[in-house]
Amino acid sequence: MKVSQETGSEANIGFGRALMPSYLEMCPQKAAFSSFRTQPETHCSRLSIGNIMEFTQADRQHLDKSKQDTGSLGNTDDALKYDSGRVAHDFSCIHSKDLLPAEEGEEATKHFLQELVNILLDYISKSLKRGSKVIDFHYPHQFKEGLEGFSLELPDQPDNLEQLLVDCRDTLKYGVKTGNPRFFNQLSTGLDIIGLAGEWLTSTANTNMVTYEISPVFILMEEVVLRKMHSIIGWQEEDGDGIFCPGGTMSNLYSVLLARFHLFPAVKTHGMSAIPRLALFTSAHSHYSIKKSAAVLGIGSENVIVVRCDERAHSVTWNPHKMMGVPLQCSAILVKRKGLLQECNQLCAEYLFQPDKHYDVTYDIGDKAIQCGRHVDIFKLWLMWKAKGSEGFEAQVNHCLENAEYLYYKLKRRADFQLVFKGKPEHSNVCFWYLPKRVQNIPPGPERDRELHMVAPKIKTKMMEEGFTMIGYQPLKNKVNFFRCVFSNPATQREDVDFLLVEIARLGCEL
Amino acid sequence: MKVSQETGSEANIGFGRALMPSYLEMCPQKAAFSSFRTQPETHCSRLSIGNIMEFTQADRQHLDKSKQDTGSLGNTDDALKYDSGRVAHDFSCIHSKDLLPAEEGEEATKHFLQELVNILLDYISKSLKRGSKVIDFHYPHQFKEGLEGFSLELPDQPDNLEQLLVDCRDTLKYGVKTGNPRFFNQLSTGLDIIGLAGEWLTSTANTNMVTYEISPVFILMEEVVLRKMHSIIGWQEEDGDGIFCPGGTMSNLYSVLLARFHLFPAVKTHGMSAIPRLALFTSAHSHYSIKKSAAVLGIGSENVIVVRCDERAHSVTWNPHKMMGVPLQCSAILVKRKGLLQECNQLCAEYLFQPDKHYDVTYDIGDKAIQCGRHVDIFKLWLMWKAKGSEGFEAQVNHCLENAEYLYYKLKRRADFQLVFKGKPEHSNVCFWYLPKRVQNIPPGPERDRELHMVAPKIKTKMMEEGFTMIGYQPLKNKVNFFRCVFSNPATQREDVDFLLVEIARLGCEL
Repeated sequence: MKVSQETGSEANIGFGRALMPSYLEMCPQKAAFSSFRTQPETHCSRLSIGNIMEFTQADRQHLDKSKQDTGSLGNTDDALKYDSGRVAHDFSCIHSKDLLPAEEGEEATKHFLQELVNILLDYISKSLKRGSKVIDFHYPHQFKEGLEGFSLELPDQPDNLEQLLVDCRDTLKYGVKTGNPRFFNQLSTGLDIIGLAGEWLTSTANTNMVTYEISPVFILMEEVVLRKMHSIIGWQEEDGDGIFCPGGTMSNLYSVLLARFHLFPAVKTHGMSAIPRLALFTSAHSHYSIKKSAAVLGIGSENVIVVRCDERAHSVTWNPHKMMGVPLQCSAILVKRKGLLQECNQLCAEYLFQPDKHYDVTYDIGDKAIQCGRHVDIFKLWLMWKAKGSEGFEAQVNHCLENAEYLYYKLKRRADFQLVFKGKPEHSNVCFWYLPKRVQNIPPGPERDRELHMVAPKIKTKMMEEGFTMIGYQPLKNKVNFFRCVFSNPATQREDVDFLLVEIARLGCEL
Repeated sequence: MKVSQETGSEANIGFGRALMPSYLEMCPQKAAFSSFRTQPETHCSRLSIGNIMEFTQADRQHLDKSKQDTGSLGNTDDALKYDSGRVAHDFSCIHSKDLLPAEEGEEATKHFLQELVNILLDYISKSLKRGSKVIDFHYPHQFKEGLEGFSLELPDQPDNLEQLLVDCRDTLKYGVKTGNPRFFNQLSTGLDIIGLAGEWLTSTANTNMVTYEISPVFILMEEVVLRKMHSIIGWQEEDGDGIFCPGGTMSNLYSVLLARFHLFPAVKTHGMSAIPRLALFTSAHSHYSIKKSAAVLGIGSENVIVVRCDERAHSVTWNPHKMMGVPLQCSAILVKRKGLLQECNQLCAEYLFQPDKHYDVTYDIGDKAIQCGRHVDIFKLWLMWKAKGSEGFEAQVNHCLENAEYLYYKLKRRADFQLVFKGKPEHSNVCFWYLPKRVQNIPPGPERDRELHMVAPKIKTKMMEEGFTMIGYQPLKNKVNFFRCVFSNPATQREDVDFLLVEIARLGCEL
């Protein structure tokens, strides 16, 4: 919403002015009104003067009621985040140029970031709360028309910090609560608090994995974690290399790139025309990123041939941002053969990889990568591993698999649901159709399939509009649209699985 | 450092026990000692019981002195971050499993994240402070031997939150303060507070750019920002496409990929063998990622031919994480021709890109990308743009260019420094040699070059060990090692440039 200048009651303004004449003279119009735009009748003004204004119990009750009424995500809670006796701040007179590194910018910086953190803490509590909405869905045109004052356009003039905080709240309000226990839409779900702490620190450190001199600690952490991952896979100490990538697709792309280089090293310098024409064999169930990698690497997507295959491999893509619940992004390509990454990718750029540095330059791992600069993705994983131990991750994954099994058995017992695959889930995906009564009564055949194909999209539409849960659907070869439930959120319990089925049936029974 | 159980004075323990017998019975050994491992003689214990313990002025002075003595980044400051009257918390009995989504996990979660934020706020203040160290350098073996108790190894058992917070502090302590005004080592420097706020929110939202249904707001923000970038480049409204990538190298890779596809669309499906043999022309000064992209894409790094060229292009890589000071990562590939990204990269994966969704599926931009899932890099940029306006970024870039010009003129006036290029800087890089007296006295020629080549690495070594500034060096073709100063940090002022030259001379004059 836009910060505007609705008037508070005259009595409040008078009260405010009586107490703080000098401050109000500084910002006469805004001082009394900031942050309570949704409650013009509030008794409180937010002024950064010290302990003058205290919230009374009546104030708290009033604000609580307003919060429930507006159903907002807590933009009235900001002042409540402060200790009693401590007063919230007026950001409407402050702009980013007043923050560090500006002289005297420290106070404003701390207050601004603290205010933001309060918003985030409030969001975290709410979004992990069972029963809270997963999404407050709106169509693109609604946002473009300016939704309840939330404008995505970039203005010519800088906004004040109050407006930015409002924008932050709105951004979270209209986004998807991926930590919600009833968000089943993707294989990356959940909101790990330690991982989040790791991310907050990572962004504050704001550095780059390209050389040891600028990321000594993070580079060593990556080495430690990769070694741990190797040992879990079962590779020997003397084997094993790897690197963290911006996602699973990039990791898969590395795997194809490395395999090609390993077999035909001349391709690096002389290209595909210097080597025989290639075909790429992959499992029938491989992720589409293998095909995409073939297209990118110049192999060609139609030269990808699917085969049945066993699990042995010289490289492994491991995505901690999936089942391990690490915040996005976090993916690694693990390579059995040491040195292959370096040989395949290095170009020895002089401005980064000088050989005459004073430390062991094998720690300048940037030349192993396709990338030059590389985001620090390792710290959150390292911190989570320290926080949970391997046993913690094991328990977490088992919990997801148990949820999948629980869902499977629930579905088996219901006539209005039908599993896509008869066998027990092999992992944490469970695929199923919902059949409204009307569709159940059509005999199996093309007509029933046509009707069934339209059920999931219709239910999904309603589901998004109501917003209490989310699950994806898709067709697969000759199978018409079915729901695909994936479990990766440690917060999800059986009651959430129960809720999902009740909700799907509620939304779909009349179709 | 490891959280251990050094004993406090017996008097303190007695005092503590007298006041809080029930709590101490819960955690008898740890309650009195957490968080003051570096000051076993402290008067204070940190206990989460309310307002019982108050810091006296003597306590504050003692802690301040300890902080100066240890030179630590403020691990004694944590309790001081809380309001007077509010007591810090004991995290030594809490583990990650006690945090959300655990039942009753909310309080512990808020306190833990708040404690981390206090650490981060302290770090931000210090690292932006002129005169504070840029780095506390250590060699890899020192970390591996366990530096002052800081262990990078992953233990079998979960660590408690106290240990994790200590690890966070140590991680920051031994890292590089890239926001320091005297960090000149990379083209990504500085710590933008709004950008940081954007990153903290981004990680809390923890979602993925692949489809509109899971990132409605961020996808629309990306569209708005790309349109703004197009207008700055000078493309018409009806032109222009683009996508944010995990870094400049990936953006450049996209540019080559798109160009190849545009000219030879069959390469996507049939590979390089179905098209003529390619040569890739690029500027003599192009970034090495062009060569790297040629290797990856199957063109071959030796089929890259350097030419002189003008600036017109059908695609542009723009890295806001460089001169615009946006926290890593933030890079975009801008493409003049609408639809080319989609045609080039789409594979229409059924489980993500169903055509029968209830909203306009052109907003499911994931299939434009090489990646599948994609990190949200847009929000911090959008928020910064709102906070500064285009004029703010303009001023920021100009400031960097002015610093470069200032350095240039300073160098010109000194006999002990020599510019690598005679002309004024074309951008924010300034390259120069430092010549100790001894080297100045050698006549120009191979011997002088040999000596000069060793000067920068030696100065850099000392510079890293002392830690008050950092600057990179490199050779270039027939030019021996020179320093390359790059400006991108808005915090850097002329006095920092002055300091750099004084420091280089101080460290190098005797060489």
